Amino acid sequence: MGVMGEAFTQLLIPVAALVGIGFALLQWLLVSKVKVSADSDLNNGYSDRLIEEEEEGIDHEDVAAKCAEIQNAISVGELSLSPSLWFEIPEGQPHFCLPSIGTLASSWVFLVPSFSSFSVQLRASAPKVSLALITQAVYIATYANARTTLEARKGVGKAFIVAFRSGAVMGFLLAASGLLVLYVSIHLFSLYYGDDWEGLYESITGYGLGGSSMALFGRVGGGIYTKAADVGADLVGKVERNIPEDDPRNPAVIADNVGDNVGDIAGMGSDLFGSYAEASCAALFVASISSFGISHDYTAMSFPLIISSVGIVVCLGTTLFATDFVEIKNVSEIEPSLKRQLLISTILMTAGIAVVSFFALPSEFTLFNFGSTKTVKNWHLFFCVSIGLWAGLVIGYITEYYTSNAYSPVQDVADSCRTGAATNVIFGLALGYKSVIIPIFAIAIAIYVSFSMAAMYGIAVAALGMLSTIATGLAIDAYGPISDNAGGIAEMAGMSHKIRQRTDALDAAGNTTAAIGKGFAIGSAALVSLALFGAFVSRAGIETVDVLTPKVFIGLIVGAMLPYWFSAMTMKSVGSAALKMVEEVRRQFNTIPGLMEGRAKPDYATCVKISTDASLREMIPPGALVMLTPLIAGTLFGVETLAGVLAGSLVSGVQVAISASNTGGAWDNAKKYIEAGASEHARSLGPKGSDPHKAAVIGDTIGDPLKDTSGPSLNILIKLMAVESLVFAPFFAAHGGLLFKLL
Amino acid sequence: MGVMGEAFTQLLIPVAALVGIGFALLQWLLVSKVKVSADSDLNNGYSDRLIEEEEEGIDHEDVAAKCAEIQNAISVGELSLSPSLWFEIPEGQPHFCLPSIGTLASSWVFLVPSFSSFSVQLRASAPKVSLALITQAVYIATYANARTTLEARKGVGKAFIVAFRSGAVMGFLLAASGLLVLYVSIHLFSLYYGDDWEGLYESITGYGLGGSSMALFGRVGGGIYTKAADVGADLVGKVERNIPEDDPRNPAVIADNVGDNVGDIAGMGSDLFGSYAEASCAALFVASISSFGISHDYTAMSFPLIISSVGIVVCLGTTLFATDFVEIKNVSEIEPSLKRQLLISTILMTAGIAVVSFFALPSEFTLFNFGSTKTVKNWHLFFCVSIGLWAGLVIGYITEYYTSNAYSPVQDVADSCRTGAATNVIFGLALGYKSVIIPIFAIAIAIYVSFSMAAMYGIAVAALGMLSTIATGLAIDAYGPISDNAGGIAEMAGMSHKIRQRTDALDAAGNTTAAIGKGFAIGSAALVSLALFGAFVSRAGIETVDVLTPKVFIGLIVGAMLPYWFSAMTMKSVGSAALKMVEEVRRQFNTIPGLMEGRAKPDYATCVKISTDASLREMIPPGALVMLTPLIAGTLFGVETLAGVLAGSLVSGVQVAISASNTGGAWDNAKKYIEAGASEHARSLGPKGSDPHKAAVIGDTIGDPLKDTSGPSLNILIKLMAVESLVFAPFFAAHGGLLFKLL
Repeated sequence: MGVMGEAFTQLLIPVAALVGIGFALLQWLLVSKVKVSADSDLNNGYSDRLIEEEEEGIDHEDVAAKCAEIQNAISVGELSLSPSLWFEIPEGQPHFCLPSIGTLASSWVFLVPSFSSFSVQLRASAPKVSLALITQAVYIATYANARTTLEARKGVGKAFIVAFRSGAVMGFLLAASGLLVLYVSIHLFSLYYGDDWEGLYESITGYGLGGSSMALFGRVGGGIYTKAADVGADLVGKVERNIPEDDPRNPAVIADNVGDNVGDIAGMGSDLFGSYAEASCAALFVASISSFGISHDYTAMSFPLIISSVGIVVCLGTTLFATDFVEIKNVSEIEPSLKRQLLISTILMTAGIAVVSFFALPSEFTLFNFGSTKTVKNWHLFFCVSIGLWAGLVIGYITEYYTSNAYSPVQDVADSCRTGAATNVIFGLALGYKSVIIPIFAIAIAIYVSFSMAAMYGIAVAALGMLSTIATGLAIDAYGPISDNAGGIAEMAGMSHKIRQRTDALDAAGNTTAAIGKGFAIGSAALVSLALFGAFVSRAGIETVDVLTPKVFIGLIVGAMLPYWFSAMTMKSVGSAALKMVEEVRRQFNTIPGLMEGRAKPDYATCVKISTDASLREMIPPGALVMLTPLIAGTLFGVETLAGVLAGSLVSGVQVAISASNTGGAWDNAKKYIEAGASEHARSLGPKGSDPHKAAVIGDTIGDPLKDTSGPSLNILIKLMAVESLVFAPFFAAHGGLLFKLL
Repeated sequence: MGVMGEAFTQLLIPVAALVGIGFALLQWLLVSKVKVSADSDLNNGYSDRLIEEEEEGIDHEDVAAKCAEIQNAISVGELSLSPSLWFEIPEGQPHFCLPSIGTLASSWVFLVPSFSSFSVQLRASAPKVSLALITQAVYIATYANARTTLEARKGVGKAFIVAFRSGAVMGFLLAASGLLVLYVSIHLFSLYYGDDWEGLYESITGYGLGGSSMALFGRVGGGIYTKAADVGADLVGKVERNIPEDDPRNPAVIADNVGDNVGDIAGMGSDLFGSYAEASCAALFVASISSFGISHDYTAMSFPLIISSVGIVVCLGTTLFATDFVEIKNVSEIEPSLKRQLLISTILMTAGIAVVSFFALPSEFTLFNFGSTKTVKNWHLFFCVSIGLWAGLVIGYITEYYTSNAYSPVQDVADSCRTGAATNVIFGLALGYKSVIIPIFAIAIAIYVSFSMAAMYGIAVAALGMLSTIATGLAIDAYGPISDNAGGIAEMAGMSHKIRQRTDALDAAGNTTAAIGKGFAIGSAALVSLALFGAFVSRAGIETVDVLTPKVFIGLIVGAMLPYWFSAMTMKSVGSAALKMVEEVRRQFNTIPGLMEGRAKPDYATCVKISTDASLREMIPPGALVMLTPLIAGTLFGVETLAGVLAGSLVSGVQVAISASNTGGAWDNAKKYIEAGASEHARSLGPKGSDPHKAAVIGDTIGDPLKDTSGPSLNILIKLMAVESLVFAPFFAAHGGLLFKLL
């Protein structure tokens, strides 16, 4: 037994969760104090004027009213999206059957091996919790868009704080609610299971599957949504009609803004939420069959939840550094401030982990290790959690190095635009390939240390360590799309050049933090899916996964192929969905009289509907690939081949995901580097419209589906296949491998 | 014992090899009958005029003289390349130390575990044999270039036959000499080893390492050479000076032509030769410790060599279908004729395998299987060899489907050029990803069947099956660059439009067959490196390679990263080398008076020298990565981690290689599709210079390094690391894993 008593633990977890939720609500309250004035019924005619410091001859009331109008349009867009995305799917979409069949089948098989119906309900509850939170997060983001724009009139610092606080609302809400629901579920379930902890925590794994299924919608569907709208809006607006980006005359512009929130906020949020739920469940399950569970040491058993609790408190302190302790006065301070968030939270968290490792855990205990047991000391677990945490920081910083235009890699890519789009693409691809090296070494070291010290439990808590600062991670990640849309609204509302410059600076920093967020998401997905893989292997009763057997090897090579298949599908999906959008935007320009002249309003809602419908339809093939592969591999080829498939897709998918995200991020920021023209070198490549800039725009367009759809979606591929295999493991072990039995 | 006696086997192998060599010489004789007339000293003023059917007012003597002059320049270019590439490296290039150190270290460690100095000599002999053959092949190709151009004046059929015969010279020379040297070596070695077959065949494995080291130069160095020259020539010539491709005023044009021969002929030839040598050695080594070796059944022991012997005879028959049985009268018959070669050779070979499997092998025998033995029947081996052969055909045909502009995938990519370069790149990348699926399934099935039936011996003979039609494969592969250069020479010699059309048609078919050749090379590399991996594991005394141990898993994930690192390096190498070429070409245009007006001759030799020096210097970093990774992984982390690295790089590298090659091939042919304008759809995208065509050119330029340098070079990565590990296995097993011992 550790020093920390059960009573203290029972108090710490819910209190930390509630503090996190309270902090989120407080941030929201502070954001809501910025009033958007307009005569729209959303705001009931409320009309509190802002102190406008330095507008340049633009009608202020008109500007604020326009902001309100645009925000309203975005909200309507999200209203039209959310219900169909989250609720009405099974009724409204007959094509949607395939993944649903997978889920249904999974529910069915899940019931077979004598599990309680509790777990099924819990699995159903996780997507609902995730859904409620993410819907909320998308609304908050929208809510923050116009407010950030309006605050930008007062100065860059004020705008930064609004954007960052709004991001923090989402970060804390997700992290704290995730923890709270897990805590409450465990207590509710224990009423049924009593002292059967193995049964209790096995049923809790349903929460992980639920979280991941939701992420499939958020990441894949959201990724298709956002890029269909973005590419569609650009191809007709910028290329054919020659109107600027974010111009309100473009019918797809609202869909584009909605897409930023859906893809970057709902996608990232559901992805990280899924990772968090899965890592916790994997750790809890392994612990329940180890000495913690057998000796009924409640505090040690709750170690994963305690880490998350400490994480919420640490992130709360970290957030104050950005919003209260230090004030941003200058554009150049934005990016360092966001980066500092990562470093502060990591340092504080390391201390926090040390404290809980020594107080919550017994000094020595045994852990389950593929059939055998392994003796572990409490400081081992301190290293496991910390190495995950620091590996995350390394991945974040390396990602920043390769995607921020403050460093030479992106500047070299920008420079290569001199000789045209082809060299830009070649250099960008090479940059993405190169950016894989150090993150993979960081992940490999984290895996080696945690695996050697504490077997699969070590991997699971390393993943939790990386995710322990999830609230801060999500806050700086959500900050990106909020600033992006704030800039869009400023453009649409016809605000002054000065304000646009401020929102552009906020946005550029957001691009880099978004890349960092993707790095985190991929790194944690790798650790989580390895932990789930270990849990699958344990549950399926496999002793070794030997590459030197044909069953495993063919699984490995086919598994390594899946990320390519999946990426081909998602890239094609974006293409098809964008094509539909192009047709609709062209139709509106051709049939609505006065649209180009700004006399008539475009039909934003139809474009939103097209993006919504297309994303739902187009996510079926990749979704089916993810859901059906474990079923087919397990049923026809058995658990050994399936283990090979999981290992192969994991080690290959991580590389494709990192390189795709970083290549895309680098192209985006290379373009921004030329546009901003902040250095002598950058000005020699510009200005907007020059040949190097045109080459950079081509790279940026290629990068869009890579970095926002196909790359991050691979996280879902590797996690969801692993968790699905875990759930089906007993079935596959008993009845799988039909094909080999027949031969 | 099989039905076939030892005496017959002793006769069959050398006779088949000599027949192959004789056939190659006959083909050469037939090609040499086409006389290139010129006053250059190369031809001693010989001046036999051709029957010129349909020239259009162009001075025939002048044209032929120009052809001779250009061929002479290319030959001089190759003379300046070959010695420095193949012989003078260690003396002339101090930078070259790194890979040399690897080779030296390898020789040293190889000597330590009581091996005879024979094997070292043999290892040294393999590169020399390979070198001699490949130098020869490059000369033949050059020799054929101008002759193909001149024959094109008589008709497309005549030109096709010259180009194809020249390809066959290389194919048969490589296949037959490789077999002969192996046969002679075994007999020479047996004088020393006597009845110690295990020692004899273990020492023969040195042949495999030698073959692969040579391939490192051919593929990586050759790949950098050809693309540096190509990109350099295009960037200054086509873009800056606005002169056509292959214009003789461009100083880099000869380097470009030399590069086609070096990259596509020397690269492919050394790669496939390496695969052939390694597969044979791996099969022989495993057989020597199995019942064939123990019972001293010479015929069964020589099964791998017998397969190759039959392959030569089969390919000889197949070649006659292209050159003698069927006459090509029309441009549209070229591609089907080349494809038919693959099908005919595969069908004939299947019959051949059946015959030798039933006559050369005992009906039942035992094979070594990771420490245990496995009972195998002769029809099992028939299936192993055949499935490799047919998997090769499937890969070839799928590659053709995805890279030929006769089918919808490439046409869709061409169509995507309508919306610009960005969509072209996105569609091209997605095509490459998609083209991986079926080849991986084909490889997986081949691995499963051969692995299950005959363990690692099965994999090795499956690889030999795929390579058994190597003579035909190389013939149709070498046909590509020969036709390409024939077209270049026609342009440079100022021949008529009609002749240029004919050589273009030959070239377009060559592009597709080159892609097929790459598919074969990758597929066989995968099987070969798996066989070598198995041999390494056996020699290192590892019983299982369990993914569920941290040592193996970190090896797996880092190994899966290596292809990305390697590709980033090779892509950057092409960039740097091309930049040097650009500077030199610019310098010549600026300093040589009258060059642009055609009054002065450019200094071709300096450009050739730049490409040569740059390719040698730039191949050092990727070469060092390949050579040092097994040494570092084995010494510091031990054999388990190294096994993980090999498996990871194999399963990940195959995907990257296939997708890169096919993406590049598709872009190239999409551009050609628009330029040729053979259909209504193609014409709607053209003509040359239209916006879609410009977008297609960008894709083609991006694809160049992917398909000709970074993609195919990965074959070398996976094979060379495996064979190096095999050679070092006893050392690593005894002394490796220092880091883990210290911790």
